Amino acid sequence: MRLIMIGFGNLGRAFGRSLLEKKEFLLTNYGLTPSVVAAVDEYGAAVDEGGLDVKKLLKTAEKANTVADYPARGKKGRSALEVIEEVEADLVFELTPTNIKNGEPGLTHIKKAMMAGRHVITSNKGPLVVAFRELDRLAKQKGVEFRYSGSVGGAVPVIGLAKKMLAGNMVHAIRGVLNGTTNYILTRMSKEGAPFDVVLREAQELGIAEKDPTLDIEGTDTACKITILANAVLGISAKLKDVKVVGIRRIRPEAIRLAQEAGYAVKLIGVAKRDSLEVGPKLVPVGHPLAVGGTLNAVTFETDLAREVTITGFGAGPRETSSALLGDLIDIHTALGD
Amino acid sequence: MRLIMIGFGNLGRAFGRSLLEKKEFLLTNYGLTPSVVAAVDEYGAAVDEGGLDVKKLLKTAEKANTVADYPARGKKGRSALEVIEEVEADLVFELTPTNIKNGEPGLTHIKKAMMAGRHVITSNKGPLVVAFRELDRLAKQKGVEFRYSGSVGGAVPVIGLAKKMLAGNMVHAIRGVLNGTTNYILTRMSKEGAPFDVVLREAQELGIAEKDPTLDIEGTDTACKITILANAVLGISAKLKDVKVVGIRRIRPEAIRLAQEAGYAVKLIGVAKRDSLEVGPKLVPVGHPLAVGGTLNAVTFETDLAREVTITGFGAGPRETSSALLGDLIDIHTALGD
Repeated sequence: MRLIMIGFGNLGRAFGRSLLEKKEFLLTNYGLTPSVVAAVDEYGAAVDEGGLDVKKLLKTAEKANTVADYPARGKKGRSALEVIEEVEADLVFELTPTNIKNGEPGLTHIKKAMMAGRHVITSNKGPLVVAFRELDRLAKQKGVEFRYSGSVGGAVPVIGLAKKMLAGNMVHAIRGVLNGTTNYILTRMSKEGAPFDVVLREAQELGIAEKDPTLDIEGTDTACKITILANAVLGISAKLKDVKVVGIRRIRPEAIRLAQEAGYAVKLIGVAKRDSLEVGPKLVPVGHPLAVGGTLNAVTFETDLAREVTITGFGAGPRETSSALLGDLIDIHTALGD
Repeated sequence: MRLIMIGFGNLGRAFGRSLLEKKEFLLTNYGLTPSVVAAVDEYGAAVDEGGLDVKKLLKTAEKANTVADYPARGKKGRSALEVIEEVEADLVFELTPTNIKNGEPGLTHIKKAMMAGRHVITSNKGPLVVAFRELDRLAKQKGVEFRYSGSVGGAVPVIGLAKKMLAGNMVHAIRGVLNGTTNYILTRMSKEGAPFDVVLREAQELGIAEKDPTLDIEGTDTACKITILANAVLGISAKLKDVKVVGIRRIRPEAIRLAQEAGYAVKLIGVAKRDSLEVGPKLVPVGHPLAVGGTLNAVTFETDLAREVTITGFGAGPRETSSALLGDLIDIHTALGD
């Protein structure tokens, strides 16, 4: 299968390494032989319709901080859109950073790829929170496969679990700890009794929180994931602005201590139901599967037959998200009966 | 799709009710119209190649405690094996009770069904722990689909998660709380400080533990599930006798209390690795996703890319297991491209 990779930052590189590492595994277990025919980053493109040498591509990207220096045969300096339209390929990985305002440039990349008849895999939340239905329709109309497992839960197969593994069930509600940074902060506050600002600074020093942590601590990242789950699992047509959001900035150690004394943990929980979408701090009984600590993510599906099913794991990290990208690739390969 | 149901006890009836309840859902979402053409229990058979009236079948079974009184057109008094061989059908549900000694009568039912070219779905652990490889090979040889999701984890899609949702991963180890009865007993012992015998009696009165609880408390049921997971997920050829088993009968409240003070819970854990299979009481850190309470089940997969992924939910109960049976039915329907 011929792949185009748009975006070759931390995630693109981790995925490239996974492709190398899993070459034998994919061939033996699934008869799958992926060939990266193009990689594009903000500085340029590496193109070889015969298949790029992924090892060399990774070395180039790490040394020059761009794939554009890759000694390829193809015409240089092509933009992502030119590559998507001109390079013969079966599937496009859209791995550029999330932009929740208008979904760009990911949104246009995905649309162009679908218009060109290419399957699409992405972990980019931007295009999904602004145009989920539009992209879903376009994929169907063009007869291409569209997967986005990595956009929610990182390595934790949240969407697939609900759509495929609980296929006989009606999902009534989804509740989740969907942001590792805020979960880390709340866990540390509860263990140390320290105030929010102190723990946030510690998390930033450890690289768990970003320099500008706004999207995480204000609950926006969780709201993005709730929007995607509402569309993908509950089948409702929701956008980011439909989610009522409260963040964790105002939570004080005393509140956490009181909750603890009563047998509860304070967690930033996203909730998706057919008639309401919200994100906010909630009390979760200690011992409940959602009461996970550290940077873990956990999502509970409330269903009719299976009752509550919860899945837990590491929701972020390039290597973990590669697990989702690879799973999507195998899933499309299998769906196509290749 | 024409279905034969072998076994029509609590599970068979719950599944029958799910089929009625989900008729519209299956048609709308999957274009699936299941038709039960035969149901067999230990007293006889109800057969109608045009499709039994499932509502009437359920009423008959509840009133007469057998399906044999169903006013069907077909020849009466046929055995399960005769029905499997003679009645035109696409798929056989094998839902008789588990027999871990020799897998019978389920094992012969499944083999005959496969020989007759029928797909098979079962939640019966017996045939799987004595002849997993043989059945897996026979299904492939006969070109039929074989699913057994309900045999491990009840409503919790443990096997599907590992095989499909973590498809890009190598699973190194599986650790699980796989028996609701023992988890209930250990949870109560930890909360009340009460001795094993007292809590076991309480669990029996509540219907959570069986009159003869040996298979649960000696760890045999957990060992069965570890055997199935080892075969299905790790791909090794294991039988029940390969699992080293220690039960929970000798655990004393003092041991649980000491563990608690050190921040641990005592859980009956099954572990499957490529070079060892075992079941026994283990210490699990409080806050770890495996440290679930009550009758919950939880399974952690240790993988290369996704690291640890845990799934949690209700591992037993006829309605919950129906969720797995229905999921397998949809999965086969989808795999066949019907």
